[in-house]
Amino acid sequence: MRIVVIGAGAMGGIYGARLSLHNDVTLIDTNRELVDHVRRHGLVLEEGGVETTFHPGMACDVGGLAPADLVILFTKALYSRYALEGARSVIGEDTCLMSLQNGAGHERLLSQYVPMERVVIGTSEDNGAPLALGRIHHGGAGVTNIGLAAGDDVLLLERIRSAFEPCGFDVRIHSDIRRLVWDKLMTNVSLSALSAILQCDMSFIAADGHAWSLCTALVDEALMVAEAQGLHFERNAVLEKVRTTSLSNPGGYTSIMKDIQNGRRTEVDTISGAVVTAAREHSLQVPRHEMIVSLIHALEARGRS
Amino acid sequence: MRIVVIGAGAMGGIYGARLSLHNDVTLIDTNRELVDHVRRHGLVLEEGGVETTFHPGMACDVGGLAPADLVILFTKALYSRYALEGARSVIGEDTCLMSLQNGAGHERLLSQYVPMERVVIGTSEDNGAPLALGRIHHGGAGVTNIGLAAGDDVLLLERIRSAFEPCGFDVRIHSDIRRLVWDKLMTNVSLSALSAILQCDMSFIAADGHAWSLCTALVDEALMVAEAQGLHFERNAVLEKVRTTSLSNPGGYTSIMKDIQNGRRTEVDTISGAVVTAAREHSLQVPRHEMIVSLIHALEARGRS
Repeated sequence: MRIVVIGAGAMGGIYGARLSLHNDVTLIDTNRELVDHVRRHGLVLEEGGVETTFHPGMACDVGGLAPADLVILFTKALYSRYALEGARSVIGEDTCLMSLQNGAGHERLLSQYVPMERVVIGTSEDNGAPLALGRIHHGGAGVTNIGLAAGDDVLLLERIRSAFEPCGFDVRIHSDIRRLVWDKLMTNVSLSALSAILQCDMSFIAADGHAWSLCTALVDEALMVAEAQGLHFERNAVLEKVRTTSLSNPGGYTSIMKDIQNGRRTEVDTISGAVVTAAREHSLQVPRHEMIVSLIHALEARGRS
Repeated sequence: MRIVVIGAGAMGGIYGARLSLHNDVTLIDTNRELVDHVRRHGLVLEEGGVETTFHPGMACDVGGLAPADLVILFTKALYSRYALEGARSVIGEDTCLMSLQNGAGHERLLSQYVPMERVVIGTSEDNGAPLALGRIHHGGAGVTNIGLAAGDDVLLLERIRSAFEPCGFDVRIHSDIRRLVWDKLMTNVSLSALSAILQCDMSFIAADGHAWSLCTALVDEALMVAEAQGLHFERNAVLEKVRTTSLSNPGGYTSIMKDIQNGRRTEVDTISGAVVTAAREHSLQVPRHEMIVSLIHALEARGRS
């Protein structure tokens, strides 16, 4: 499969590197130093104590590349539009666009570039962290859940699975992928969003009564919006999952918390903002999520000032 | 007038010291070191470059004191109940209880100790800061606004004014004192509360679009609750006042922001919490103020942990 992976951070690097084992992969990243390094020395993944060097194609932009079968977006969501604009020349008539990014609602943007029937969304349970230039720690390897934003072209998803699985990815195809995306979103819009504002570790949220009451109220608003979209969740199960995630991560920091701490822009618009956008489509009020979005943007601005 | 001032922080110290010029004043503070110091050396106010030493009575508790004509509460609001319990023996049949503390709704607590008709509430435009043990900087001297929480015993208020004015206080008596208290509250529940959560200076709030939209939404909820209580404000005038306060204080920090920064408990329950309490009495929803209260309590807890 001809695959273009946009964004060579930890996740883009892991997918780009491994997929290059059995596919024609080009990784795109605006970081010139990284591009030059990978071209010369390859991309090293540290996986369970083993180091492997991969040699995906690597470029700062898509110039000169033919249209791809699959374009995977692995930028921070706030750079998605910019990345897609730059990738127009590799998005052809049959190209699929995939996002495994955090948050929800990415299909809205992706469907401005290909028909919704060729938009693949999902979640990745893999995780990783950059160690050095061209070197990535690939932590837990989990399931890659994928599904179509619209339609039922299962063959298309099967082709993607066939391309991914020989490269070491456990791909599961879902007919109700949005439910899965929202299931993951529940933790991000409550636990992660709050940990950014409170600048605390994950375990604090379930341990502190006030933080937990906020967390619960955020889950409740998100559940209401999910329900309006036909996505039903058991409230107690969601809360228990969030609580367990919180308590089992003492000293663990969410990426959005780290972004605020380090004065970087966050992905809040596609995390808590996804709840706000979906609520508007159903004329629902989500004052708490609106407030979270504004508070995090204000904290971003304070970090810059 | 026999006056007991509870709490010898900056404000309690200023009122206690100055009122002692022409009244029988005892300052109560649990800080034994401060009590001993003031008994020996007096209490020094620095006012406009001039230092004056005052000699109010000073004690750790009210033991041995006769019932007072007036008890003024100048503790942090969160210690009000504790302070009043300790002051029961000086609260007699004719004692008036006064609070010029930040926030609103103090009359609820005070009326558990004297009839509402002898509860005096108000605002002080004076400000000060402790410089050292027994030494306080008395900054701007402004108006002391007072009124009764219930009834119309103007003579009672006149007696208080007569006791205060020779000591240098500009006292104004109001028949609609709650309106004035809520007018001040508008700035505290928006600008001050947000500056605590965002850990920013005052000027940031009006300068940043996201922070200002939050600020506006908080004012709107508070205005709704004020209106339900029969307190009418012009929205634009309130917002303009908050905006001006924000922009004219670059590098200025609110006390609640400093409390969070320094890991101390805040007065949020009688600031944003006053809006929440009043909203409940009128069956109104104020999700934003509820969230502010919980966020600030969570930040307090994070500071302790």
